[in-house]
Amino acid sequence: MAAQPAVVLEEKGKISIRAFDIGHTMGPQDVEIAIDTVGVCGSDVHYYTHGRIGPFVVEAPMVLGHEAAGTITAVGAQVHHLKVGDRVCMEPGVPNMSSRATKLGIYNVDPDVTFWATPPVHGCLTPSVIHPAAFTFKLPDTVSFAEGAMVEPFAIGMQAAAKARITPGDVAVVIGAGPIGVMTALAALAGGCSRVLIHDVVAQKLETAGQYDGIIPLDPTRPAAEQVLDATDGWGADVVFECAGHPSVYPSLFANARPGGMVVFVGLPVDKFEFDLVGAMAKELHMETVFRYANIFDRAVELIASGKVDLKPLIAATYPFEQSIAAFDRAAAAHPADIKIQIKMP
Amino acid sequence: MAAQPAVVLEEKGKISIRAFDIGHTMGPQDVEIAIDTVGVCGSDVHYYTHGRIGPFVVEAPMVLGHEAAGTITAVGAQVHHLKVGDRVCMEPGVPNMSSRATKLGIYNVDPDVTFWATPPVHGCLTPSVIHPAAFTFKLPDTVSFAEGAMVEPFAIGMQAAAKARITPGDVAVVIGAGPIGVMTALAALAGGCSRVLIHDVVAQKLETAGQYDGIIPLDPTRPAAEQVLDATDGWGADVVFECAGHPSVYPSLFANARPGGMVVFVGLPVDKFEFDLVGAMAKELHMETVFRYANIFDRAVELIASGKVDLKPLIAATYPFEQSIAAFDRAAAAHPADIKIQIKMP
Amino acid sequence: MAAQPAVVLEEKGKISIRAFDIGHTMGPQDVEIAIDTVGVCGSDVHYYTHGRIGPFVVEAPMVLGHEAAGTITAVGAQVHHLKVGDRVCMEPGVPNMSSRATKLGIYNVDPDVTFWATPPVHGCLTPSVIHPAAFTFKLPDTVSFAEGAMVEPFAIGMQAAAKARITPGDVAVVIGAGPIGVMTALAALAGGCSRVLIHDVVAQKLETAGQYDGIIPLDPTRPAAEQVLDATDGWGADVVFECAGHPSVYPSLFANARPGGMVVFVGLPVDKFEFDLVGAMAKELHMETVFRYANIFDRAVELIASGKVDLKPLIAATYPFEQSIAAFDRAAAAHPADIKIQIKMP
Amino acid sequence: MAAQPAVVLEEKGKISIRAFDIGHTMGPQDVEIAIDTVGVCGSDVHYYTHGRIGPFVVEAPMVLGHEAAGTITAVGAQVHHLKVGDRVCMEPGVPNMSSRATKLGIYNVDPDVTFWATPPVHGCLTPSVIHPAAFTFKLPDTVSFAEGAMVEPFAIGMQAAAKARITPGDVAVVIGAGPIGVMTALAALAGGCSRVLIHDVVAQKLETAGQYDGIIPLDPTRPAAEQVLDATDGWGADVVFECAGHPSVYPSLFANARPGGMVVFVGLPVDKFEFDLVGAMAKELHMETVFRYANIFDRAVELIASGKVDLKPLIAATYPFEQSIAAFDRAAAAHPADIKIQIKMP
Repeated sequence: MAAQPAVVLEEKGKISIRAFDIGHTMGPQDVEIAIDTVGVCGSDVHYYTHGRIGPFVVEAPMVLGHEAAGTITAVGAQVHHLKVGDRVCMEPGVPNMSSRATKLGIYNVDPDVTFWATPPVHGCLTPSVIHPAAFTFKLPDTVSFAEGAMVEPFAIGMQAAAKARITPGDVAVVIGAGPIGVMTALAALAGGCSRVLIHDVVAQKLETAGQYDGIIPLDPTRPAAEQVLDATDGWGADVVFECAGHPSVYPSLFANARPGGMVVFVGLPVDKFEFDLVGAMAKELHMETVFRYANIFDRAVELIASGKVDLKPLIAATYPFEQSIAAFDRAAAAHPADIKIQIKMP
Repeated sequence: MAAQPAVVLEEKGKISIRAFDIGHTMGPQDVEIAIDTVGVCGSDVHYYTHGRIGPFVVEAPMVLGHEAAGTITAVGAQVHHLKVGDRVCMEPGVPNMSSRATKLGIYNVDPDVTFWATPPVHGCLTPSVIHPAAFTFKLPDTVSFAEGAMVEPFAIGMQAAAKARITPGDVAVVIGAGPIGVMTALAALAGGCSRVLIHDVVAQKLETAGQYDGIIPLDPTRPAAEQVLDATDGWGADVVFECAGHPSVYPSLFANARPGGMVVFVGLPVDKFEFDLVGAMAKELHMETVFRYANIFDRAVELIASGKVDLKPLIAATYPFEQSIAAFDRAAAAHPADIKIQIKMP
Repeated sequence: MAAQPAVVLEEKGKISIRAFDIGHTMGPQDVEIAIDTVGVCGSDVHYYTHGRIGPFVVEAPMVLGHEAAGTITAVGAQVHHLKVGDRVCMEPGVPNMSSRATKLGIYNVDPDVTFWATPPVHGCLTPSVIHPAAFTFKLPDTVSFAEGAMVEPFAIGMQAAAKARITPGDVAVVIGAGPIGVMTALAALAGGCSRVLIHDVVAQKLETAGQYDGIIPLDPTRPAAEQVLDATDGWGADVVFECAGHPSVYPSLFANARPGGMVVFVGLPVDKFEFDLVGAMAKELHMETVFRYANIFDRAVELIASGKVDLKPLIAATYPFEQSIAAFDRAAAAHPADIKIQIKMP
Repeated sequence: MAAQPAVVLEEKGKISIRAFDIGHTMGPQDVEIAIDTVGVCGSDVHYYTHGRIGPFVVEAPMVLGHEAAGTITAVGAQVHHLKVGDRVCMEPGVPNMSSRATKLGIYNVDPDVTFWATPPVHGCLTPSVIHPAAFTFKLPDTVSFAEGAMVEPFAIGMQAAAKARITPGDVAVVIGAGPIGVMTALAALAGGCSRVLIHDVVAQKLETAGQYDGIIPLDPTRPAAEQVLDATDGWGADVVFECAGHPSVYPSLFANARPGGMVVFVGLPVDKFEFDLVGAMAKELHMETVFRYANIFDRAVELIASGKVDLKPLIAATYPFEQSIAAFDRAAAAHPADIKIQIKMP
């Protein structure tokens, strides 16, 4: 592919919109997609503001963006389940298809996985991309591009819900009502919970979450656990989703869970914290962790298409491509009510 | 307890309403309940019309009824989680609490379990009953007695959904749209499926099921499997719930399932049938069976209370206690649209 | 590759040893293997004697053999975990690596899988083969080629044991003591069972099985279930492995299982049979099916290498390559004590 | 029961052997047992040396001992599966049989559980005790009293192995080679692992563990994780059992695990430590915790009786009842080679 306009993170703190040649070539199992909509993710913003996430460091200009939907413009010779004109969304991580992890069905933890907009791999904030058909998913007519570009962040919540091994009717609590917390709450509710309690110390975030039937905001001024126990006759929640990643939540986290309950770690803690392992052991809790997702995109699309999950209210604003820098700056400002900012291609 | 009016199955084909002394006495872990509403179940009707179900034979007059809700009128000395005045529903099967199966958490398959209205154990179609507190569940204010008496049949669908180990977003198909099929479809949908396709050869049954968003009736004049494959791009359903128990469904049952999918057997087959085990093996299907339920009532109440499951449209008619025989005769007539007939105590 | 000597099934009932060009070419993710030892499998024999297995029909000359071990003679450019000179065994089924089933980790049920010596795909009874490195597994020095060629049949038993979700200390019963039954019994024992009871109507088969500590032959003249109940204080086996595939075993199969137990179907039934679904439902049994294996070869090699599983006593005879037809004829004779016949390449 | 001689912890640091009336009375579901052998557990010793374990404080004289085997001398009227003269071992924790946790099959986390020799509940270091028959397990003739008294500590290892959901052939590593580490290693090996690597910083502890085939001591002078990676071609262990509870092991614990692997927390950490949650998340590890055991005693007895697990080499010394104080003092000295000290009743 030739050079195209792209949103390029030149270095920490500096984004340009300029011509860029990603250098992809089309293989027989690939498709070419005209991008329509791209969501701005917290990780994109973090590379912008900090220049790195853990071991991943921005050392050369990198095209941003990994939450995308678009329309297929070409298909490789061995692609049979997609055709030109199909509206699609894309799973941004591509593993080594022959690896041990991939054969096990856990391709997300394949050490060789490449992921859009994770250095040194380029993202998709550019008019046209090439991607493996196996990681490209058709959108039904009833699902808009804007919703299609929400599948990626929703997939993280879905992975959390899948990991929780929800038994129908479970009561869940989500700690942290940022974008991942809200996605997780929606996935847990659609995924079989009867009610999802949600807690945050920022009241405004709880308002966004609370607009959904079945998602019940707790009082932000009181500890979560005592409210969870009140709401469950002292038994505790069947599932606890940790989506804050903040040091303050870990010491009392397990107090939210019922004996034999499940705790799913979704939020990535950046600072040190105290971990009450004895508290988990005393109730013999199960603990699961989430790293992106695997085998989730198709079922995320199903839930959106069926109407069980409505992500549209979470899109706070949509910027045209040429205003992408403004979009990133707004996302970097992190308004509590801004669950998702999207960019619309020309 | 002294003799009370009761709906008594005297023998096959003959029901009386007359004074009857069940002979229960109150223990320290029991509660006494004033019955308000009792649903008529297919098994009650089958004892009425056939005098037996498999090895269980009506050999002496037996009080009918096992789907009940009411109000607590007395509690034993060791009962702490319930009090007089609580509105409740009751789990009709009581195991030996010290048995090997009970310790494993699968008390429903304890060989010593006793179950209301299963010979020679009396049921609850009488104004007052005594029951273990451990199998009595409080109803929130928002759940009516009529809904409370629906918890028992819904629990079977819930057990099926729990056994299916649904991953959020699964596509399910239910074969058979009688009461159990509809309950299972509702439980599967609330329990995490994105869509539940449902099939029956009787069109009218599909209408009842189809009134719910997310439950999608198939064409009763065409085989289920070809429609399921159409609806899933040729992949098949993630979960197949067999709720018909009819010989005609088994030969092609596994054609509904995706490779590696799940089949749950809920319907009890009474006649011989051909079982396509090779068809199941070629896709390496998982198969689960359902025998009543265990640890389900509390989560069934949760889903009704949260509003995720609305059982009220399934109650076709309510008869006063003194017209109980008419209620049983109507249930025995098995109108396709009559999902549930209930009896209201005086 | 050029033509090489090969054991060719020309048509039903006729095997030749002659030059044959399989026509494989080496890709960057492939390895080339000099075959050392090949086991004769019941399916090879069945194609020989019947010309077909279900939908798979021998319509053109086909090279036989799919249980093999050998030494790597060349590696493709992208192969990193294997090198020339490595002693290896090969997983004979190769899926579409980008398929939906493969991404889920259940590549054995990928509809596009190709499998050695399953028409029209050629097998490996020839001096040199090309195979994907991802399905080629290094043998430790302590594992002989003869044992390496046993990994494939053992993998079926291992898949059965994996599907059983054995809890440490489970009591299992295996119905059918043919090669698959013995492999399953060994896998179940190594895989966590405390004891494995085994039943067959042919006493001589039980002798082979009974030479292993922990595998306990039942009386072939009495029904299995009554002996299993005797051996478990009337409770039943935690896991029942059906490895006979014979119509006579199904009607009483579930009587072997404890309440809430597991039944794994390994044997492929060719004739019609009566299936006691109600018997399974009354105990709420779990049922799993086995279709070949996935992600099993590495762990099968581990168990052989560690010494926990000794397959050497099961090799009844080894024929030189030039006597391959005699080897097939002996295997076709199906002596009860002949668990495995192998062929050694020149 | 009248007063009997008993080993009484009078207060922190002071044990007497004197007459004591535990005050138990026999109920219809109980059995009376003449105690033969009692093991000394680390928790007994900790109450002796520290007077408390977490919230459990010795505030009054308490009979010690909870690892016991003996012979039944009387049975309650409702006991059917045991009879006078049966040789038995006893599960020391007794839950509320009607509780929510017990109905779920996780009676070990019932908040109301009582446990021998956990204040204020008396233990069994006395000639005769009364215990619920449901928690009393018959020993086969081939299992000695000494082995029977080892069932309790082995049950903790078994619970860990059961929680690990071992797939047959898994490679495990055990961190910490004290009594619980050794028990866990044995349970993991018998429970389906191909090999169990074990690490400790005390070389002598590794010698005890290393006497078993299949349990492979690592070099105590080098970190565990680098040796585990070496032993698994860089992939990591399928299962990591944390049995040390020491602050030094947590920072690098997850480096032992393969992508998507399992970590089971068995050791109880008493001091603060750093928990590398991000390390667990990056591989999407599963984590399970162990609190005593549930539904394990019968399967532990099965494994001992079958000969798969030999606990006899772990009994370092046996003291007569009248030398019980010496037994406790030796246990308190914690010689690295002393896995278990037992006391034999007169």
